[in-house]
Formats: sequence, structure tokens, C-alpha cells
Amino acid sequence: MKEASFIEYIRSRSVFDPAIVPVGPGDDMAVVRCGDQDLLIAADQVLDGVHFRLAEHGARAAGRKAMARNLSDVAAMACEPLAAVATVALPRGFSEADAKEMYAGMRELGDAFTCPLVGGDVGTWDGALAISLTILARPGPGGAVLRSGARVADAVCVTGAFGAAWRTQRHLTFTPRVAEARILAGQYGLHSMIDVSDGLSIDLGHVCEASGVGADIQAEAVPVHPDALKRPDALAAALGDGEDYELLFTLPQDQAERLLADRPLGEVPVTRIGTIVAGAAHTLVLADGRRQELVARGWQHDT
Amino acid sequence: MKEASFIEYIRSRSVFDPAIVPVGPGDDMAVVRCGDQDLLIAADQVLDGVHFRLAEHGARAAGRKAMARNLSDVAAMACEPLAAVATVALPRGFSEADAKEMYAGMRELGDAFTCPLVGGDVGTWDGALAISLTILARPGPGGAVLRSGARVADAVCVTGAFGAAWRTQRHLTFTPRVAEARILAGQYGLHSMIDVSDGLSIDLGHVCEASGVGADIQAEAVPVHPDALKRPDALAAALGDGEDYELLFTLPQDQAERLLADRPLGEVPVTRIGTIVAGAAHTLVLADGRRQELVARGWQHDT
Repeated sequence: MKEASFIEYIRSRSVFDPAIVPVGPGDDMAVVRCGDQDLLIAADQVLDGVHFRLAEHGARAAGRKAMARNLSDVAAMACEPLAAVATVALPRGFSEADAKEMYAGMRELGDAFTCPLVGGDVGTWDGALAISLTILARPGPGGAVLRSGARVADAVCVTGAFGAAWRTQRHLTFTPRVAEARILAGQYGLHSMIDVSDGLSIDLGHVCEASGVGADIQAEAVPVHPDALKRPDALAAALGDGEDYELLFTLPQDQAERLLADRPLGEVPVTRIGTIVAGAAHTLVLADGRRQELVARGWQHDT
Repeated sequence: MKEASFIEYIRSRSVFDPAIVPVGPGDDMAVVRCGDQDLLIAADQVLDGVHFRLAEHGARAAGRKAMARNLSDVAAMACEPLAAVATVALPRGFSEADAKEMYAGMRELGDAFTCPLVGGDVGTWDGALAISLTILARPGPGGAVLRSGARVADAVCVTGAFGAAWRTQRHLTFTPRVAEARILAGQYGLHSMIDVSDGLSIDLGHVCEASGVGADIQAEAVPVHPDALKRPDALAAALGDGEDYELLFTLPQDQAERLLADRPLGEVPVTRIGTIVAGAAHTLVLADGRRQELVARGWQHDT
């Protein structure tokens, strides 16, 4: 069955007591109340042949990506990593050296982001390598930034540049924007945020849908990654390729102006690509002023 | 590589700040400090062909077992389930009906034990069905019961009966001893506890090793499940088969006597099977008084 429709089915059957689960499935992380603390949790898997190719990329890259994808979810909520657990299904005959490399890949990023790997499960089977990682996080001082907070007239901004992340293996080497997210949320009053994993147009759609708004995106403003520039369809790659793991966020226009003047993220650029509008339409505004529907079309693992 | 040696490798490289991670890998759950609260977390996977056989047992049983194994970890710590997240790797062509059944299996136990499924990830791949579930829990009033607290002269007790759980599919239908564990820990001053998944002799060994003690086990006292009684090697099955998901715990002798008189668990029997002793030897004491080494020999998924 289609992943998206199964997830929609699960969501439709998920009814929680908001005193215990303030945020359930549908954001980058769920929020669970633990005593008087809010705790965030998310789980993501990486599968051989889907999210990496073991024979080509190696076990270390697979382990690293498992941790990186989850840290990117922590970034999307502007939170602070707390700890992680992982389960690993090892192919029969997996070597000790590869197992250690895989673990080193997880630890490399876990250590860098103060996210200790505190437990898990290892199994051996006839199948291919599958790593599932669950991450816990604490909200920052201003609380978690959700997908659902975008407001009409908000500026739509992104970090970094987009396109060709899979073809150039950036999806294996990216640095999760955890530190950048906390600076943005702490200093610029963000209304909403998501990390771009499915693709810029799809993930913008997730924010708009959760917030009940639409968006105008300026085609010329979309930052295309140099890796994608050589392609004839560079803009389409930037809007649709996915696996960029950059941040997309919305904030009041005056805050956006201050942010773009401050340049608080050092070498990581921030670009304003559009504006949140009333309604449900996503529109791509071309350089000559023509407007066309921005179809949420991205690279999906199951197609 | 061998699962056990990989886990040992990971453990040897896991050094935590005890103010943040009071209990790391090596118990049934890790303990993470979140503000002034202790939070418990564990992850377990179920893999087609290892922990279930999809074609034979069906998707609902697979989903149920994923939740049940994790709830059994919560029981082993005498804690209270808080929430769960799951990742699912679906075989290509997995039907919508099967996906819904798998989810229903998870929800069946999650709902029964007030453990909402708050998030996760669904992927499709060329491999077989793999479900990874992570569970969060809160300590009970007396705190988490660890494997490492067994003391010399403690009584060794178990719930239920042992053997043939895999052959008779009890491993798919068992009820996690969450409620029983909280009664035991709340009223009888337990020193240590574990859930019996690898096998009675192996899991007793885990408690003894973590506690730095040995044990004398009375062969005649070991409760053999009726399913295993017809086997000529019934005692060996009870000691080694695994996947019983009963509780093994130690407590002071006077508490054990009170517990055995009280019978506080209704239909679930409690049996004293032995005594914790100084040293590192695990001894099986036969009915005629002869003593033999209790070899930690269980059913392991990878052999």
C-alpha cells in the first residue's frame, strides 16, 4: 500500500488526551508530557536500497544517516537532542568490521550533537541492513516550533540550497541544522518550521496544510544548489528532489528583514523565497510575474 | 557477527554522565534524566523469519508482538508505559488490509496498557516486514527495578511457567506482566527483576552478572509450562527455550514468604525457584541433592 495513505489512516485513528500528548503524529516530532516537562520523540529508519546502498556507500554512512535524519527532526522543532536508541537488523554474515563502522557512523554525529546512544536491539536475519533510530529531545526556551503555526503574511525562508542531494550523496554527509534552528527560533520569533526531507514543494505543502494557509513562492528566489545547477531542470530539482535536510520556516516580515540583515548563521545562508497567503493555493511566481500552480511533487522513496 | 559480542562492544564504548543517563545499555530499559524526572526508554524490533513468520502468523500478530515485547521491558523495570513510536519497513506489495491489521495488533495492546502510539515512520522496500518499536515509561513510586540489585540470600522467584513458548505460539499471544510487576515492586521490596525473553537460565545469568552474584536453582521447583510437559526434556525446555516473557525477580526471603502466602497476582502464579548465593556459580540442585552447573543455554535467534 502507499505509505502516505497508511500514515493518513494512522493519523485519522489517533486521538490523544492533550494533557498527555500535546502533539501527536503529523509533525516532525511528537510531544509527550512527562510530569511537568514536555518531551519530544521521533523515529526514522534507513533501509538498504531505499535510503542508502550498503555496497556502494558503506556501513558507516548508513549509521551516520540514521542519526542525521533524526537529528534533522530535532532541528525542525528547534529543540535540543537528549538521547537516542536504535534497533539494527543485520544481514547474515555482516562483518564485525562493518558493524563497528555502522556504530561509529551513529556515534560520530551523536557525539557531535550531545545525543548519547543509550540502548537498543541487534538482530540478525536473512534480509538486508535496516536501522531504526528513535530520538528524544527537550524543547528550547521558547518551546517547540510546530508546522502548524504559519500565519498569513509571514515570510517563507529557507537555510542553504536545494537539489541533487541524492545524486551527489549530500544526503549522506549533510550536517543537521540543530544549532541553526535554535538560533533562528531563539532570536527571530519563528511561527512554523519543517526540515526539507521529502522535497521543498512537498514540505512547504505540509506546513501550509497543517497551518490552513497557502503560499506564493518566487521562482527566482529559490536557492538552487551548485550540484543541481548543471541540470536543465535545475529549479524543478531544487523544488522536488528532496533529502536536502535544510530548514524551511515562516516568521513575521519584520523579523525576516532583521534576520536577513543580521546573517546570524555564519556560512549557512538564509534566503526568503516567498510569502504565506490566505487560502490553500501554492503558487510559483515566475520572474515575469506569471503565476503557476506549485505542484507538490517530490522524490518519494516508494515511487 | 555475533549479536552478543556486538552488544558487548557497544556497551564497552558507552560512557555516560550519570546525571543525564543514570542507566545506560545493559538493562531492560535505559534511564534518562529529563529535568527533575527520570524517563525510561527501550527499543525492540520484530523481523519476519526471526521473531514471527508473516505467512504463517499474519500481520496482526507481528504488530502485536512488537508492542508486547516492549511492554514486557517496561514490566521488567516495574514501570508505567507512557508512549511508543514505531518504524515499519513494508515489503513491496504489502496489502492495505495487512497494514491495517498490523497497526491493529499494535493498538490492541497499546490501548490495553495506556501506551499511545504517537509517531513513527513507514517505508516500503524490497525486503521482508520489519517492525521496530520504541517505548517510553515512567518509574513507579519506588523507582525502576534494575537487574543489578540482587543480593546474597535473596529468594529467586518467577511468575508463570516456562517452556515451548515458540512451538506453541505463546510468544505471539502472551500478556506482558506490566500490572503484575507493579504490584510486586510496590508491595514486596524487590531487589532485582528481568523479563525472561532469552530463556530462564540465560536471563538468570544476566541478573547474576549485573549483580555480581551466583544462584542455586532447585530443579524440582522450576515451573514447567503444560505445553512443554509432554517433551522428554521438559526441564531443559523450561530453562532454555526462551520467549516466555514471564518475570524473574529477587527479593529478601521474608518478603518472598509473605508474597507466596498473599498470592497477590490472582491467576498468575508466583514460584520460588532458588536462592542468590555469593560467587559467580549458577547451580542446578537436583531432587536428590546432586549439584550440577546450570549452563546458560537458551534459544537464540541467530543460532
